[in-house]
Amino acid sequence: MWRNCVRLAKGLGRSAVLHLDPKVSRCGVVRGLSPTAPCSLLWNSVTWLSQARQSKDYALPNSSWSQGMMDLYNRFLEMCKDGTWKRIPSYGNSVDHIPESLKLAPEKEQKETRLFSRNMDTEGLGFEYAMFLNPSEKRMVCLFQPGPYLEGHAGFAHGGSTATIIDSTIGGCAIFVAGRVMTANLSINYRNPIPLGSVVLVDSKVDQVEGRKVFLSCQVRSIDGQTLHAEATALFIQLNSTKSLQQQMSSQ
Amino acid sequence: MWRNCVRLAKGLGRSAVLHLDPKVSRCGVVRGLSPTAPCSLLWNSVTWLSQARQSKDYALPNSSWSQGMMDLYNRFLEMCKDGTWKRIPSYGNSVDHIPESLKLAPEKEQKETRLFSRNMDTEGLGFEYAMFLNPSEKRMVCLFQPGPYLEGHAGFAHGGSTATIIDSTIGGCAIFVAGRVMTANLSINYRNPIPLGSVVLVDSKVDQVEGRKVFLSCQVRSIDGQTLHAEATALFIQLNSTKSLQQQMSSQ
Repeated sequence: MWRNCVRLAKGLGRSAVLHLDPKVSRCGVVRGLSPTAPCSLLWNSVTWLSQARQSKDYALPNSSWSQGMMDLYNRFLEMCKDGTWKRIPSYGNSVDHIPESLKLAPEKEQKETRLFSRNMDTEGLGFEYAMFLNPSEKRMVCLFQPGPYLEGHAGFAHGGSTATIIDSTIGGCAIFVAGRVMTANLSINYRNPIPLGSVVLVDSKVDQVEGRKVFLSCQVRSIDGQTLHAEATALFIQLNSTKSLQQQMSSQ
Repeated sequence: MWRNCVRLAKGLGRSAVLHLDPKVSRCGVVRGLSPTAPCSLLWNSVTWLSQARQSKDYALPNSSWSQGMMDLYNRFLEMCKDGTWKRIPSYGNSVDHIPESLKLAPEKEQKETRLFSRNMDTEGLGFEYAMFLNPSEKRMVCLFQPGPYLEGHAGFAHGGSTATIIDSTIGGCAIFVAGRVMTANLSINYRNPIPLGSVVLVDSKVDQVEGRKVFLSCQVRSIDGQTLHAEATALFIQLNSTKSLQQQMSSQ
């Protein structure tokens, strides 16, 4: 586990080294996960995340990405070559991410809707992000560059936009271990505001799994690791594909 | 306090009665607020919220509002007539809400930016909402109709969009008692997903003030009060107008 952290730090190089001393490392031990049983589930989830039909993948570089965003993206891409990390595609509609076999009744394609974090067509104005999954560490990171339409206090990202990118990243991590999930609790400590146009790394991991409950944690840091912008904990609930969302939440 | 709740329930009528039994009432006692000292601050804050320069007010009805949204809006407007409630305007840029005297150095107008919750020009696609303040109860409510571009799970609002409207409403309540503030913690329990296009009431109140810290809580319910969609607690920090945001967050 620690070797993977060191590899990540090496892979990122000096200009974008994650702060990985033991006090702030995100490489925690995953408690409650059996070493054998979840494997097929894990790999099914990975497959699922890559199985979406042909739609525009918003997680690919575009001209609005800063040099810092591009550098970090390319370094993660490099670390994908040996299979340690996997790039996660991202589409404009939540249904585009789900294979037919995992759809909930009465879930249908609703092409007039848009995934909240991918609802802008003009590049660079809103959420610019790309996620990478480390299956062996049950860890999902998100390179996030907030655009000028995500403003809260003048010049900084709105607390709601930070909550959105955390929910999406940590949710992606929960999906990896439990398939379809729903946020039950999200608690965020905001430490330092995120300047619009800057690049931050949202780093989430699974802490524990208890039955249908998945407990996770997350940190949002500047790419040099020196500034902690936010930290969060979350609880996600695994969904049953034979029930509607409303039924599942009422039977929690 | 309780009389105001009853008046609100009466004002809303049978078709949109808020669930106001003692177990779930939002009319809590405000601890830590002196009955005299904060008054001028309270009224200054109210004035501040109405003092913005001439910009489009997005909190006025438009053709995308459902009948349920319009009915609720009109009932709150009716309750504004005796001064119990006040309608809060809402602009497309955070700087538009701030009078010159309260701006933080080096805060400037940035017209190319947009307030996150008001970043869409097409009516009905994103956040449709209007807020009302009850000064005597230190309570802010928000009528919220999530549009199809706020999707998370198919057909339902993204957890991040719910976090955004909670942060904005509860933040407005904190502004009322403490002037300029910043979110330090936001913890949300998601109980039932919010269908896109439905109307919910985000009901927030100040629970306690300790120095620069403002503690608040919030519930998100269907307009008939029967469905609890989410509940949240939050901590906001009062800002000092002579310091930048970065300085303030690092000296918390």
